[in-house]
Amino acid sequence: MTPTLKDVAERAGVSRSAVSRCFTEGASVSRKMRLKVEKAAAELGYSPNFLARSLTTRRTKLIGLVSSNFKNPYFLQVFDLFTRGLQDRGLRPLLVNLSNETDPAHSVQMLRQYSVDGVIVASSTLPPDFAKAFRAAAIPVVHTFGRKSGSPEVHVVGIDNEYCGQMAAREFLDRGYTNVGFLGGPQTASSTRDRWQGFSSELARHKDVSVSCTYAEAYTFPAGRKAMAKLVAATPAQAYFCGDDVLSIGALSAIREAGLRVPEDVGVLGLNDMEIAGWESVNLTTIHQPVEDIVNSSIELMASLLETPGRRPEARTFACHVVERGTLRPRTKTQA
Amino acid sequence: MTPTLKDVAERAGVSRSAVSRCFTEGASVSRKMRLKVEKAAAELGYSPNFLARSLTTRRTKLIGLVSSNFKNPYFLQVFDLFTRGLQDRGLRPLLVNLSNETDPAHSVQMLRQYSVDGVIVASSTLPPDFAKAFRAAAIPVVHTFGRKSGSPEVHVVGIDNEYCGQMAAREFLDRGYTNVGFLGGPQTASSTRDRWQGFSSELARHKDVSVSCTYAEAYTFPAGRKAMAKLVAATPAQAYFCGDDVLSIGALSAIREAGLRVPEDVGVLGLNDMEIAGWESVNLTTIHQPVEDIVNSSIELMASLLETPGRRPEARTFACHVVERGTLRPRTKTQA
Repeated sequence: MTPTLKDVAERAGVSRSAVSRCFTEGASVSRKMRLKVEKAAAELGYSPNFLARSLTTRRTKLIGLVSSNFKNPYFLQVFDLFTRGLQDRGLRPLLVNLSNETDPAHSVQMLRQYSVDGVIVASSTLPPDFAKAFRAAAIPVVHTFGRKSGSPEVHVVGIDNEYCGQMAAREFLDRGYTNVGFLGGPQTASSTRDRWQGFSSELARHKDVSVSCTYAEAYTFPAGRKAMAKLVAATPAQAYFCGDDVLSIGALSAIREAGLRVPEDVGVLGLNDMEIAGWESVNLTTIHQPVEDIVNSSIELMASLLETPGRRPEARTFACHVVERGTLRPRTKTQA
Repeated sequence: MTPTLKDVAERAGVSRSAVSRCFTEGASVSRKMRLKVEKAAAELGYSPNFLARSLTTRRTKLIGLVSSNFKNPYFLQVFDLFTRGLQDRGLRPLLVNLSNETDPAHSVQMLRQYSVDGVIVASSTLPPDFAKAFRAAAIPVVHTFGRKSGSPEVHVVGIDNEYCGQMAAREFLDRGYTNVGFLGGPQTASSTRDRWQGFSSELARHKDVSVSCTYAEAYTFPAGRKAMAKLVAATPAQAYFCGDDVLSIGALSAIREAGLRVPEDVGVLGLNDMEIAGWESVNLTTIHQPVEDIVNSSIELMASLLETPGRRPEARTFACHVVERGTLRPRTKTQA
């Protein structure tokens, strides 16, 4: 006979609700109680069947963590924060790698089959169709690193990429650069489009500054290196605002391989401030994106959507700041 | 009324088995057929309930992908390969982050609750108790990057770490180093213990070569930098075999921050050959671990364990080789 929760309670000499608490992630229970109950459960061979329970509660506690950025070291930190944060709330990340996926309908199908309670799309490069398709399938969706909008179609948590582009432009102006470039990620990424929009519109107000625009094929080291190699083979700008840190590091390689000095000959400004940006051999000046706040807020939002699924889409935006390191020349003006 | 597979087949005007194939990952089906069936399913609001099905088949296709290495960029590549490989076989990775976990019993409890079909432990730093606890719970286990053994207790896929230590020693001898060091990861990691064992036993046969041993606190950049900073503050060895690439890169930072040159003053040899090791600013000489083969073999082994769970534990070991870059002085002897 399969042992029940009642059997465990009797053997351990505790209440049934105490046993239940021991098998509920995040429920408060003393270490002594836990040990007593786990011992009794092990002796009886008891294990609460989460799947059977989910058919009653209609909750699986599985959260699809969907991404396509498995070549960008920044995302290891993102996955670390998401997995720990979800686990702490008794939720479980089903990691879905859409690197090779192009069909939103197929992805929705897959996640419906796996009965996830919700989906966190952690990517700025995945076409917005994906997030919309999940929403259409009536699965709660949070789009982390999604596009800020006054009228969002799904819940979005991230930064104001257009404002970051303006920040980058002002940094360049304050450092006296008069010939600058944008080296974006793929043109299909909303993050890249918005950063270019902010960067170029801010610079358009300064007729004495010329600006060029290039796109890399992906947010990866080889893509940044390849794109910059082309730029330095011709006449490069004085400084580049790159789509993100990993592109910046690829660009730095190409600049140095061409025998040019950083920041004397060519300056580089990144975005993200991933751990590697602070490594001594990299030492990248970059715009810091508050990833811990963004991930924690995404998880909180998902948790509340599981309680009240019908909420209207909300956009949560976090402030960024420049981290001064060694890849831009010093400021000549103080910012207002 | 909830629509059934039969309803979908009728609406799409196809056979029931064709519908079934469309909802089976990896099953062969034409694009035209898939579109027809998906359209009918969407119109009816049909979705195969994977959880309900799993109660009949007793298969969830969930695989616990357990790791504790979320600060080591090498593992982003590992997660990329695992997620794509598992998805291709219709299996789903439940990513479990044990960075803060110390209790094997609690982890087993967690994974049993989530009814995983199997567990892949992808870590050399997780105490072997974890893999054993999963095995004791009768969950099929593959320990990737686990310890090679003539009589393994769980299925292990990885490299021969002791042999890699010997390779490192012979590299140092062939380059004429006479005063060398080992800078390992945490002493509790089997990978570090085995690499030191191979390294020191090979060097013990050469009385004219002196060797020192240090351990970093973790396989991370800051840990490597901190450990090397102490070594260069005293009298460093001529070259160090570091526990892995990320430790090596931390060590390189500390060496250069102390005003020493690489490889003229201090040489560094890594292990893994992660993508970052080839970045121009890193350019690390390292021992290549064939991670794609290791991950693919781990997935194949897991897939066959799901079919025949009672198989006796097996150890699969892959060969490594040195990748020559810029952090060791040239060989003076040719290897036999």
